[in-house]
Amino acid sequence: MPDPPAKFLDPRLLPERLKNMTLPDLEELSREIRAEIIRVVVRNGGHLASSLGAVDLIVALHHVFDAPEDRLVFDVGHQAYAHKILTGRLSSFKNIRLQGGVSGFPRRDESVYDPFGAGHSSTSISAALGMAAARDLTGSERRVAAVIGDGAITGGMALEAMNHAGGLNKNLLVVFNDNRMSISPNVGAISQYLSLKLTTPEHLQLREKVKGTLKKLMPKRGERLIRRFQGAEEALKSFLVSPSAFLAAWGFKYLGPIDGHDLGKLVEALRHVKSLQRPVFLHVLTTKGKGYAPAEDDPLGFHGVGKTGAPAPSPRLPDELPQSPAPEGGLGPPSGAGSFPRSAQRAPAPESFTEVFGAALTSLARENPKIIAVTAAMSQGTGLTEFFSKHPERSFDVGIAEQHAVTFAAGLASEGFRPVVAIYSTFLQRAFDQLAHDVDLQRLPVLFAVDRAGLVGEDGPTHHGLLDLSYTRLLPNFTIMAPSDAWELRKMLALGLSLPGPASLRYPRGAANRPPERFLERNEGKTRKPPSLGRGEVVLEGDDLFILALGSMLWPAVEAALELEDEGFRVGVANLRFVQPLDGELVLEKARESGGILTVEENSLTGGLKSAVTEALLENGVKNCKMGWLGAGPKPVEQATQAQQRALLGLDSAGIKKKALELLKSRL
Amino acid sequence: MPDPPAKFLDPRLLPERLKNMTLPDLEELSREIRAEIIRVVVRNGGHLASSLGAVDLIVALHHVFDAPEDRLVFDVGHQAYAHKILTGRLSSFKNIRLQGGVSGFPRRDESVYDPFGAGHSSTSISAALGMAAARDLTGSERRVAAVIGDGAITGGMALEAMNHAGGLNKNLLVVFNDNRMSISPNVGAISQYLSLKLTTPEHLQLREKVKGTLKKLMPKRGERLIRRFQGAEEALKSFLVSPSAFLAAWGFKYLGPIDGHDLGKLVEALRHVKSLQRPVFLHVLTTKGKGYAPAEDDPLGFHGVGKTGAPAPSPRLPDELPQSPAPEGGLGPPSGAGSFPRSAQRAPAPESFTEVFGAALTSLARENPKIIAVTAAMSQGTGLTEFFSKHPERSFDVGIAEQHAVTFAAGLASEGFRPVVAIYSTFLQRAFDQLAHDVDLQRLPVLFAVDRAGLVGEDGPTHHGLLDLSYTRLLPNFTIMAPSDAWELRKMLALGLSLPGPASLRYPRGAANRPPERFLERNEGKTRKPPSLGRGEVVLEGDDLFILALGSMLWPAVEAALELEDEGFRVGVANLRFVQPLDGELVLEKARESGGILTVEENSLTGGLKSAVTEALLENGVKNCKMGWLGAGPKPVEQATQAQQRALLGLDSAGIKKKALELLKSRL
Repeated sequence: MPDPPAKFLDPRLLPERLKNMTLPDLEELSREIRAEIIRVVVRNGGHLASSLGAVDLIVALHHVFDAPEDRLVFDVGHQAYAHKILTGRLSSFKNIRLQGGVSGFPRRDESVYDPFGAGHSSTSISAALGMAAARDLTGSERRVAAVIGDGAITGGMALEAMNHAGGLNKNLLVVFNDNRMSISPNVGAISQYLSLKLTTPEHLQLREKVKGTLKKLMPKRGERLIRRFQGAEEALKSFLVSPSAFLAAWGFKYLGPIDGHDLGKLVEALRHVKSLQRPVFLHVLTTKGKGYAPAEDDPLGFHGVGKTGAPAPSPRLPDELPQSPAPEGGLGPPSGAGSFPRSAQRAPAPESFTEVFGAALTSLARENPKIIAVTAAMSQGTGLTEFFSKHPERSFDVGIAEQHAVTFAAGLASEGFRPVVAIYSTFLQRAFDQLAHDVDLQRLPVLFAVDRAGLVGEDGPTHHGLLDLSYTRLLPNFTIMAPSDAWELRKMLALGLSLPGPASLRYPRGAANRPPERFLERNEGKTRKPPSLGRGEVVLEGDDLFILALGSMLWPAVEAALELEDEGFRVGVANLRFVQPLDGELVLEKARESGGILTVEENSLTGGLKSAVTEALLENGVKNCKMGWLGAGPKPVEQATQAQQRALLGLDSAGIKKKALELLKSRL
Repeated sequence: MPDPPAKFLDPRLLPERLKNMTLPDLEELSREIRAEIIRVVVRNGGHLASSLGAVDLIVALHHVFDAPEDRLVFDVGHQAYAHKILTGRLSSFKNIRLQGGVSGFPRRDESVYDPFGAGHSSTSISAALGMAAARDLTGSERRVAAVIGDGAITGGMALEAMNHAGGLNKNLLVVFNDNRMSISPNVGAISQYLSLKLTTPEHLQLREKVKGTLKKLMPKRGERLIRRFQGAEEALKSFLVSPSAFLAAWGFKYLGPIDGHDLGKLVEALRHVKSLQRPVFLHVLTTKGKGYAPAEDDPLGFHGVGKTGAPAPSPRLPDELPQSPAPEGGLGPPSGAGSFPRSAQRAPAPESFTEVFGAALTSLARENPKIIAVTAAMSQGTGLTEFFSKHPERSFDVGIAEQHAVTFAAGLASEGFRPVVAIYSTFLQRAFDQLAHDVDLQRLPVLFAVDRAGLVGEDGPTHHGLLDLSYTRLLPNFTIMAPSDAWELRKMLALGLSLPGPASLRYPRGAANRPPERFLERNEGKTRKPPSLGRGEVVLEGDDLFILALGSMLWPAVEAALELEDEGFRVGVANLRFVQPLDGELVLEKARESGGILTVEENSLTGGLKSAVTEALLENGVKNCKMGWLGAGPKPVEQATQAQQRALLGLDSAGIKKKALELLKSRL
């Protein structure tokens, strides 16, 4: 990538500088920003296509509006990289998404130009409306704008906010950045409507009706009049049978659609909007990947799911480029059902948990016609691409609408189907109430494939999946499982689909773990028991200390125990498999035998495995058992690679060994 | 209420019976159902106005459709009492909402005619769409209908589901039961639109444009043609600038509005709908309280908030009639700031926590112009009526849209305001993700007045507020408070509004507790320390056992301790006041001193006070402390009075005494 000399880009560049720029200068600035984004994102990884598509729009916004006094609220569906570059963050942008660099999302603690943080989509209109209400209470004249993409607008929150904004009739601008392909091609009726695909039977009928009426009224001059009337009819239609009417119904003035890469038109439209004192919906058409040929031609391909085992993309960021070559521990999957074969080491590049899930579900669905896949705009991210192509009639992508996804699946389950909702842990939070009432209370057999459950790396605090164990554990009918590797994921998926009630199966982003080499050697030929409801698995015996590991933490814990063995400690390791129902018998036995327990989980330390084990010990009156734990504390885990984040929390073999040693030594 | 002879009502009445009924017979059946509903609800309490409004519609639905083969999914906003009576539940309907009677809501475990349970609003279209998808996969011909009210349709979930349904183009009927006044007069743009109040400037302009065009085209015959064209224009307009166009945008065929009390028209419309194979939106206008003069004249008054201290209405059920005269412990509020005065006993009827909150907030807002009240369609239920009338410019009712309410408040807080979101515990679940990201992670000072936190009585499992302690404790920046009485609520409200970050203040439905008489006598003249962040209050000393009580459980615990004192036990009681930050020092001191701890909370035993105390003890290595706990277990607490439910869980002075005695005896 050649490095053109930058005329305007400057680490001290602030929006004031743009106020008096000429159109050609603004265009040059856009080009420079694009070049910078491409340079950095190709190196660091990140969200390329949508960021490039929004550059001209953001330049125009900063030219016309006066941030930070005017509030520009970027929804997460719309990447604000250009906004960061234009607001004094050029230097740290070079380290975007890296430890210590700027975040990939707007954040209040990063800049006064970020009036509201974003992480999950569809929040911007609500927050902006709150700001508009606040403004009106203080008598300020400032403008408030939400910038939201075509994927995010279908989220229930965004629709609730539009409805409220129209009702309040506040001076509020919603900039609708429509690249006509949110993450995956957009879902639902609204997006069709807003994309001007107005070809419903009603609309076609209407056209004929108008013509018919004219012909009837004036039989002779009808034809001629129809031609003359055409203009009026078109004007009428373009107003009525159009986004104008639709948005008017929400109380919004509709403007557009305008070309989001024509800076002159953008500036003109925004200046006009500035003169209005009401809810305005400005429809801007943009091209994903604008200015970068490979991304422009194949924006979906810029998901970055590498064939070479590179990490799957971050949550809901379709155009993300891969960053690190492979996550820690890329050891290849254990193959063989129920054994610990050494041959696994000769396997090709490691599969991700996501891929294992997708392949396993597709294969199970071949045998079981009741299996249905449901996703909320994440069919590719959750590994369902093959399922969607093999079983299209049993595939449902509901768009960005997690709450709906959950209750829709409950509806399917109520009719005897076995829906599997493949969803990222962090997004499932959106549907907590639906999990509680529509699934758990009714004991409907919906299976949740909770992907990205754990630390997610570069996306940082808003995207970790560190709460799902905690909030699903509040729901008493849920079976909560976590597989340690690919073999176990397949077994648990089949088990989950045989249960009479709801279940979750949670696994982290990245390559599925594999047993350590030494462990495989020692267990060559031994068989492994498949998961059985509510029972854990003792993987390594030892009575100086017992590690209770969950899911992806199992094999790092075994590695740590083997290293401690070399140092003369006999540390046992159990694979708990289920957080609910918890294998209390195993926990109590090992706590009494060894007198020391260490829980290891890739989840918050509040409410998850540690809490479950603590409660089991206390309720059963186990005393004199020293206890330690590893997991996420109250402090947000900032952006970094997954390996860095795990190291920070001690959630790798080195960290587990260190913590185990502390416990062992404190008991000597 | 006279008891007319019933011609059709029969405990064995099933929908089949309705198939061949004549119109006059159906009308008679409707009358009988209305009479029965009035008879039962006036006696038992319950939701009168909306139930009466839907009787004709439900009779028509069961006449035309074939339940249970056809699926009728009732949203909670639309009460299905008539449906229960028509589906073999007349006998148990007499005990609706009472212990052992039928539930006030549809429930899968109650009848095959209830294909999907409901509790919180806006879920019916999602569930029905799932059923429609399931039907199409099995090749069945059955019809699926969701019946949803005008309040519930603005919930984000309902809008997400509409959007998805339009996109899928499924054969699905949405019956929109529009009584033009959901709970409180409806909020937002959509409701205006669907109520045909089409008077936006655009619509008026359009009318003029059409006329202008005609005059220009035919200057001479213009006026006459305009009159002749009027019909066509009206037809055009009524199609385009109408719900038809709006619903067409969502992919729905719009039918209506029709008179929801004209059985002939209802039957005709439903028969027509049956012939269609696509998403249909049938707009039915109903009158709340139809057939019962007092309710028809003043449906809002049928909230049932008694001036005599009767319990406030149940969650989101505006027309609920009060049932029990007063909840347990109606002892009158403690007055006086910071003392335990006996004079309190001479106070008038006990205030509810809700009323105390509403009055206190209104009064604080007089001094502090930054205070804003936000509610999600519950201004009256959460005690904000006075606030809304005194400070209308700082009052926001966002409609049924809890997610939006939370982020809207976060937006206000980001601009320096002090928003107070008054919301029922059970509905706040809807906004867990927004609490986590938009409030907690950004540490924005939003205060949540979490009403109905605890057991709610007759509404049963879907409406208890038993999880808020658990899920807010997953959010590390939240201060979580629970007042024991009216005095403490006022103090905590002021404290919460002075904190730099988010806080919740949770209290149950019903009358605020009051210290027991004996306690007041003993402490006459003593001063009481107001709440201080993270510090508990020792209310009674004692070292045989220590009760750690939270919020509304304090005074029943003190009562129990005083009774145990008479039996020779010295039982201490602490008012923990904060679950987060927990007063760990107090907990450890009392655990070590007494060697026995009993936690008492009106919350799930998973994740709330018990978990917090357990973890504090274990983390600090406290051994040899016997522990007991009272709270809600995994089993749903079925409908009954609040007093019955509390007795069931041991959450009253008798239950606390019993549990304490068990602990005391096990330690002897």
